[in-house]
Amino acid sequence: MSKAEVSLAHLFRVFTKPEGKDSKLAQIEQHLSDNLADFLSQHVVTKARSLEDIEQDFSDPHVPEHPEFVSEHADALLKKLVSHSVNTYSPTFIGHMTSALPYFHLPLAKLLVGLNQNLVKIETSKAFTPLERQVLGMMHQLVFGEQDSFYQQYLHSADQSLGAFCSGGTVANMTALWVARNKALPADGTFKGVAREGLAAGLMHYGYRHLGILSSKRGHYSLSKAVDLLGIGRNQMVTLPCPSQTLSPEQALAAGKAFEQKGNKLLAIVGIAGTTETGHVDPLDELADVAKELNCHFHVDAAWGGATLFSHRYRHLLKGIERADSVTLDAHKQMYVPMGAGMALFRNPNDSNAVRHHAQYILRTGSKDLGATTLEGSRNGMAMMVYASLHILGRQGYELLINRSIEKAKTFAALIDAHPNLELITAPTLSLLTYRIHPGQDISRACDDTTMKQRNGVLDRLTVGVQKQQREAGKSFVSRTRLEVARYPGQPITVFRVVLANPLTTEQDLRNILDEQLSIAQTTRAWAELTA
Amino acid sequence: MSKAEVSLAHLFRVFTKPEGKDSKLAQIEQHLSDNLADFLSQHVVTKARSLEDIEQDFSDPHVPEHPEFVSEHADALLKKLVSHSVNTYSPTFIGHMTSALPYFHLPLAKLLVGLNQNLVKIETSKAFTPLERQVLGMMHQLVFGEQDSFYQQYLHSADQSLGAFCSGGTVANMTALWVARNKALPADGTFKGVAREGLAAGLMHYGYRHLGILSSKRGHYSLSKAVDLLGIGRNQMVTLPCPSQTLSPEQALAAGKAFEQKGNKLLAIVGIAGTTETGHVDPLDELADVAKELNCHFHVDAAWGGATLFSHRYRHLLKGIERADSVTLDAHKQMYVPMGAGMALFRNPNDSNAVRHHAQYILRTGSKDLGATTLEGSRNGMAMMVYASLHILGRQGYELLINRSIEKAKTFAALIDAHPNLELITAPTLSLLTYRIHPGQDISRACDDTTMKQRNGVLDRLTVGVQKQQREAGKSFVSRTRLEVARYPGQPITVFRVVLANPLTTEQDLRNILDEQLSIAQTTRAWAELTA
Repeated sequence: MSKAEVSLAHLFRVFTKPEGKDSKLAQIEQHLSDNLADFLSQHVVTKARSLEDIEQDFSDPHVPEHPEFVSEHADALLKKLVSHSVNTYSPTFIGHMTSALPYFHLPLAKLLVGLNQNLVKIETSKAFTPLERQVLGMMHQLVFGEQDSFYQQYLHSADQSLGAFCSGGTVANMTALWVARNKALPADGTFKGVAREGLAAGLMHYGYRHLGILSSKRGHYSLSKAVDLLGIGRNQMVTLPCPSQTLSPEQALAAGKAFEQKGNKLLAIVGIAGTTETGHVDPLDELADVAKELNCHFHVDAAWGGATLFSHRYRHLLKGIERADSVTLDAHKQMYVPMGAGMALFRNPNDSNAVRHHAQYILRTGSKDLGATTLEGSRNGMAMMVYASLHILGRQGYELLINRSIEKAKTFAALIDAHPNLELITAPTLSLLTYRIHPGQDISRACDDTTMKQRNGVLDRLTVGVQKQQREAGKSFVSRTRLEVARYPGQPITVFRVVLANPLTTEQDLRNILDEQLSIAQTTRAWAELTA
Repeated sequence: MSKAEVSLAHLFRVFTKPEGKDSKLAQIEQHLSDNLADFLSQHVVTKARSLEDIEQDFSDPHVPEHPEFVSEHADALLKKLVSHSVNTYSPTFIGHMTSALPYFHLPLAKLLVGLNQNLVKIETSKAFTPLERQVLGMMHQLVFGEQDSFYQQYLHSADQSLGAFCSGGTVANMTALWVARNKALPADGTFKGVAREGLAAGLMHYGYRHLGILSSKRGHYSLSKAVDLLGIGRNQMVTLPCPSQTLSPEQALAAGKAFEQKGNKLLAIVGIAGTTETGHVDPLDELADVAKELNCHFHVDAAWGGATLFSHRYRHLLKGIERADSVTLDAHKQMYVPMGAGMALFRNPNDSNAVRHHAQYILRTGSKDLGATTLEGSRNGMAMMVYASLHILGRQGYELLINRSIEKAKTFAALIDAHPNLELITAPTLSLLTYRIHPGQDISRACDDTTMKQRNGVLDRLTVGVQKQQREAGKSFVSRTRLEVARYPGQPITVFRVVLANPLTTEQDLRNILDEQLSIAQTTRAWAELTA
């Protein structure tokens, strides 16, 4: 590869002059702008290369000594990186929560980088700070529906905050539980609070053995990261089995009481509005009652399902979310914003003060610097993407998209249910569902436990094999997970998992995906065993 | 404002068709692409509007009901948001660590959003995962300089990790201290480790009263956030005063021993390579000795200064960093990458296993999913920007930029030092310096304590007043902070703080900034008092 000149003059050009219109980078950009789908289908190769093979391209641990020309590097990016990326825009990529995005995000991404604001403090984000606070306010209003006077008072208050914008649901869950932990061990006459004195001193002061968090087994793994991070310990995660895919309020209450009878304090109950694996929604209203009875924080992880609130038709599914103390949302999921737009919202605007920090050169007391109450420090202005989406799609636009996703999932579930060789495992509440290929007669109710277990073992092999082969073929992508369901008590099974978020996915796409899976399945040994 | 149609057909267009070439959004994009500096100088207003006034534009807590046309919204963004953003690209914005960026990041930002990969797991980031691991490897090699065989073994290992990519230095510091905490209270025969059993159980098991962290008072506020988050408690932050701006190894050792004599365990010593306020570098090599003697983790926060390692001329300033257990770097600082590119590096590739988490549908055991050992979950592919910068600028390009920044800071310091009405407070080690306007004779060594204190009070008022007025005038931006320095023992003073990162800043720009400050100063009452 030819090398660029090492001189200040060259470097200045890199900072001040765009590449020429005919350069490789400009061509890439033009193609992206004109037709993203075509760009991706042209450059992302469908036949998967093995990961080990791709790793060979990214194995040099040495910083290149000499500068490279921008366009030559752009070419390398196309060949090494873009070609082996995942086409998340594709209508047949229905295995994860990443989907096609509206076009306007492409130029806005450029604007974001051109402005390069840092949201940690007002001095580097003058208008972005109020914008981010408005976005938090809009989402707060959508979830909690307070009066206008409430928002007049708190939206731009220096002493309160309606939430924290962050990189994603994991940090949002951590932020919410951090607030909950600090509120559970507050300062009093003789104790300065857990933030100052530490967790062990707080437990001793209040006479608790442990703090704990309760959720169903479908809780996101970030909860487990959070209890580790916060010093609570993963053993203090009370996770209840949920063959019905939702947390039972009665069992939650009983488990919470049992936990506290051992001298512990239940810090928070986490209800899930759209589980990652099946899209189920916990009975939030009843869980709010349980949290009230146990006098603990009620957090709702609505990273996936929160956007359902835009839909007048389906928002009832989240009834009770307005009683949560804190709520996690991810705009990069069903709000179709690029990756990196999570939010933790607090019903009580004073709650975020439980984690408030100040510093001299920054985050001065009384300032409106966002960094004072966020887990993260420097952050980019991703809130602009959420703001733009809220305006350009509007509530009505979001409602159309949400309704369509849910209804498409229902159609897909009906297709599966009607097919003799497919078994619907979890029907969609929101736009997720799980199923498996199950050839031959349905013996789930007829055979004994041992036979069933054995058969499920073969079915698991079948699912894993088909999922991998389909992924490697590269035309479509469905994910898989392992679940316990009521039909097979005590026998977790492996299932296909589908997320119907992409508005561009058609019913025909879904039929094709099933056909492909069934034809792969028929070539496997497991299929032969099952149909023998 | 006219409203867009609410229909699926309209929404599909938003997802599949770019705006026309003559649309407002396309015009904005073209302007950004052709001449970013001109775009900013045309749209960012220089005369500051008050924050309260800007907040009025971002005060509606209601999600707009009806969709808006993209171009109308783009126009609103220009008028409300861009106009009142901070021109961080400007050569006269020298108050914070945000600077002009190379041009190629604009098209790459678009590519990043077009690809919209999620780095939490391989399945949504096939080539981006190896790329991110290579970036971590390159930075690891730059810092720790291990042999090639080391990187062959660990760079793509499923069971180890050289570091964690994250949104910024705050999360990087938290990640490093999380690892350090979990390593300090590990599993043994009867104890399952702090990650599982919790901090209180860990302290009890090992017979420690508290864990603690030691740094100088110049430590970043994220350390204080981290000890709160991790349950250690801010009272257990041992922060030593440092009128010389660096941590004294002797005092660190003594303070560490004193802390441990109270029955505590010092978890980590944090050395700083480029303090946020003055750019000083702690004596890392000596601090590594202290950490060894105290048998504790040695973390180096090189968020600002890490890039100095690219410079053969100045990398000696960071001598000893290669002995750190963990190092924080921010590529969005002196590596000129857009906001959101932090890294925590671990010398020992097994260290990140102290915070490893798994989940069924994701982060399966044995997978190379990055989310298993990062604090964050879903993340975008910002590592691509670092990768591209490393190639396009190269080590030699970075060396030129780093050397130039440091030398410009030295020139600026000489200018200040030679001026009768300016007082250089901290000379630059890296490219930061602090100073103040100090008219009249230098009485610092001549007068008694009370007189000096009084005079410093007036000088503080002068600095605050000038800084605000200059910021509001909008031509240039210098920040301010409050420091204790050796010359005024026991009397923290307010100073101007300058960060010379922008390669486009000229010596003439710096002279103009001083002239503007001096002429503002002469109109103040404080000036009159001081020169009376």
